[in-house]
Amino acid sequence: MADFQFSNMANRLKRSEIRELLKLTRKPEIISFAGGLPDPKIFPYEAVEQASNNAIKERGNLALQYSPTEGDPFLKEQIASFMQRQGEKVNADDIMIVTSSQQGLDLLAKIFIDQNDPIILELPSYVGGLQSFRSFNADFHGIEMDYEGVIPNQLEEKVKNLHAQGKKPKFVYLIPDFQNPSGITLSLERRKKVLEIASKYSLLIIEDSPYRELKFEGDLLPSLFSLDTEERVVQMKTFSKIFCPGFRVGWVIGPKAVIEKLVIAKQSADLCTSAFVSVVLAYFIQDGHLERQIEISKKLYANKVKIMLDTLERYMPKLEGLSWSKPEGGMFLWIKLPEYMDTTKMFKEAVEMKVAYVIGSAFYYDGSGRNTMRLNYSFPTEEQIETGIERLARLVKKAAR
Amino acid sequence: MADFQFSNMANRLKRSEIRELLKLTRKPEIISFAGGLPDPKIFPYEAVEQASNNAIKERGNLALQYSPTEGDPFLKEQIASFMQRQGEKVNADDIMIVTSSQQGLDLLAKIFIDQNDPIILELPSYVGGLQSFRSFNADFHGIEMDYEGVIPNQLEEKVKNLHAQGKKPKFVYLIPDFQNPSGITLSLERRKKVLEIASKYSLLIIEDSPYRELKFEGDLLPSLFSLDTEERVVQMKTFSKIFCPGFRVGWVIGPKAVIEKLVIAKQSADLCTSAFVSVVLAYFIQDGHLERQIEISKKLYANKVKIMLDTLERYMPKLEGLSWSKPEGGMFLWIKLPEYMDTTKMFKEAVEMKVAYVIGSAFYYDGSGRNTMRLNYSFPTEEQIETGIERLARLVKKAAR
Repeated sequence: MADFQFSNMANRLKRSEIRELLKLTRKPEIISFAGGLPDPKIFPYEAVEQASNNAIKERGNLALQYSPTEGDPFLKEQIASFMQRQGEKVNADDIMIVTSSQQGLDLLAKIFIDQNDPIILELPSYVGGLQSFRSFNADFHGIEMDYEGVIPNQLEEKVKNLHAQGKKPKFVYLIPDFQNPSGITLSLERRKKVLEIASKYSLLIIEDSPYRELKFEGDLLPSLFSLDTEERVVQMKTFSKIFCPGFRVGWVIGPKAVIEKLVIAKQSADLCTSAFVSVVLAYFIQDGHLERQIEISKKLYANKVKIMLDTLERYMPKLEGLSWSKPEGGMFLWIKLPEYMDTTKMFKEAVEMKVAYVIGSAFYYDGSGRNTMRLNYSFPTEEQIETGIERLARLVKKAAR
Repeated sequence: MADFQFSNMANRLKRSEIRELLKLTRKPEIISFAGGLPDPKIFPYEAVEQASNNAIKERGNLALQYSPTEGDPFLKEQIASFMQRQGEKVNADDIMIVTSSQQGLDLLAKIFIDQNDPIILELPSYVGGLQSFRSFNADFHGIEMDYEGVIPNQLEEKVKNLHAQGKKPKFVYLIPDFQNPSGITLSLERRKKVLEIASKYSLLIIEDSPYRELKFEGDLLPSLFSLDTEERVVQMKTFSKIFCPGFRVGWVIGPKAVIEKLVIAKQSADLCTSAFVSVVLAYFIQDGHLERQIEISKKLYANKVKIMLDTLERYMPKLEGLSWSKPEGGMFLWIKLPEYMDTTKMFKEAVEMKVAYVIGSAFYYDGSGRNTMRLNYSFPTEEQIETGIERLARLVKKAAR
């Protein structure tokens, strides 16, 4: 065998801890809250078939060819219309298509992060973001969240501390709506405060927004992107949660200077996103299926989270330090256990009790959060949620002092 | 606007020179040999529609969901069968799916290249490879080609020189079959010689192989991957040229240790390749359409290159130092002009004469090759090839001393 000399980046890349634990949970008798998948029972199969046929029949020559690196123009138009109907001010020209918002994160890491560059992010944060930023050896600085989202004062403190060391964060990475992993939403007041701080210290904000449209009830809070008047927010979107993950299409909007660099970086990442998938998606949106799918998802997940919350209330022991988020949208719920509990240590017993979760520490760049866990409610059935939470409650009872 | 501080990588990334020149050629009256597109007239629209319907009807729940990072198992099986029918010894488990072979190049760059790491590649080489490797700041070392491909002695010299400086190339990047840009094929004897050198100096070879199956006549030469007995070849494949570019699917085979690192790197690049596109492709292959498409493409391109070669013979002036490759497959032909000519300087006049090519220097990491150009014959029609070459010959005549 050749004597392979991998790069430093390759040596930093690790198989995700979550994935290794998940392997233990792939038995049919285990009720898993560990995934992050939409419920396939509501996938709009017929609409996709129809959109595929339209794509081939009406625009086959474009759908099978290379598309511009910036994205297929027809899809960009349809996304702009969709966002406008959601109340955002966006034009097709402002949109860049990416091959999943994970690619967006990777490209952002590429164009911003040099070795040891400071970035600021929520504690906990999205594991895919951590992976991308870690691969470029970012210097992580976390700000804590309560049930209203990140604490703005901590953000300001963090920036000041960095300034005192002659450093400046390359960006602040936030998931304001129904955050993964916590299910927490950043309050309107704090959104404004975060933007004030960004303005004061000239920060770039990355607003990762995969779940936003899945708000169970009432109006959406304004996005950071829409509140921003200074071109300092890059917003990342994806079809993976509001429609299906199998297409691997996301989009990015933001300052022209950033989009331009992202497009150049995308040239060497994959040249362009699949034109075929793009055109299918464009027809899917044009025919009104995206909004329909969002409505169906919202109803289903609202019902599932209600069952999860009711069952948690019913079965969980009353312990000091035990609490959980009350998601108003999205796919995840977050449990904080008493400080002395360790969800990694409890994992083996959980699997024996036939229930699985994601250990919270996976979402902390520094390995903290060991007394936390993430539960997904979009994938398991209503019955599984009830039974699974009952098992989880027994697990917590056993771990209680 | 925020005060954006881009990374060193972002500052190294440039809009590709080819793309800027290509913008000049997007007028209907210009006959362009500058593209790299398959001929859309032969795209198998009905077969794709059928495969899409099968994908949704038979495996919709998988097609719309996340797939494993390694790739959809059904597609991997179908690719393995296809490769076996082509005479390669490959199992489904050896295959990793990538979102275009450009992604494969980017992932290889990530896992191998640290700043200033030496790599060896052909002069000229694929522009997308140059871009990926440059973004990671590789130290390029070129080996020259003649019409039998790279010159093995130069490879050995280059490795020795590096050794003398205490350096070792991270890999040798080669496109042995119908190379882009040159259309040149590495002879069997030299393939063996290259592998001997690789063995002697424990080198890793990256065999980029997008055009291989498009051999117009006769048997394929054995691939470097198939000749290798020491697990030192990584082979990269794609559907973009043998079927269509609009799916953005490629695959990689190679030593397990390399594939494993690539898979981890892919997690943060895009998590997984589109399951939808993967399943559609799998049905397309299973139903025999891939081989059918290859046969159709070969016939069409064989005819087109014949016209291009005949017309070159007929119209080009007899000049010392003027020669061109005689492609036995693939999509590109390479012209070497006398040393004193400069295809970049000639470009403006070419466009005025309503013909376009790609300047050869775009394929040289060091900006050399200024007297060369790449012509594509897969996309233009037979009539356009004849008229376009006649125009090109006039251009060369005018530039002749």
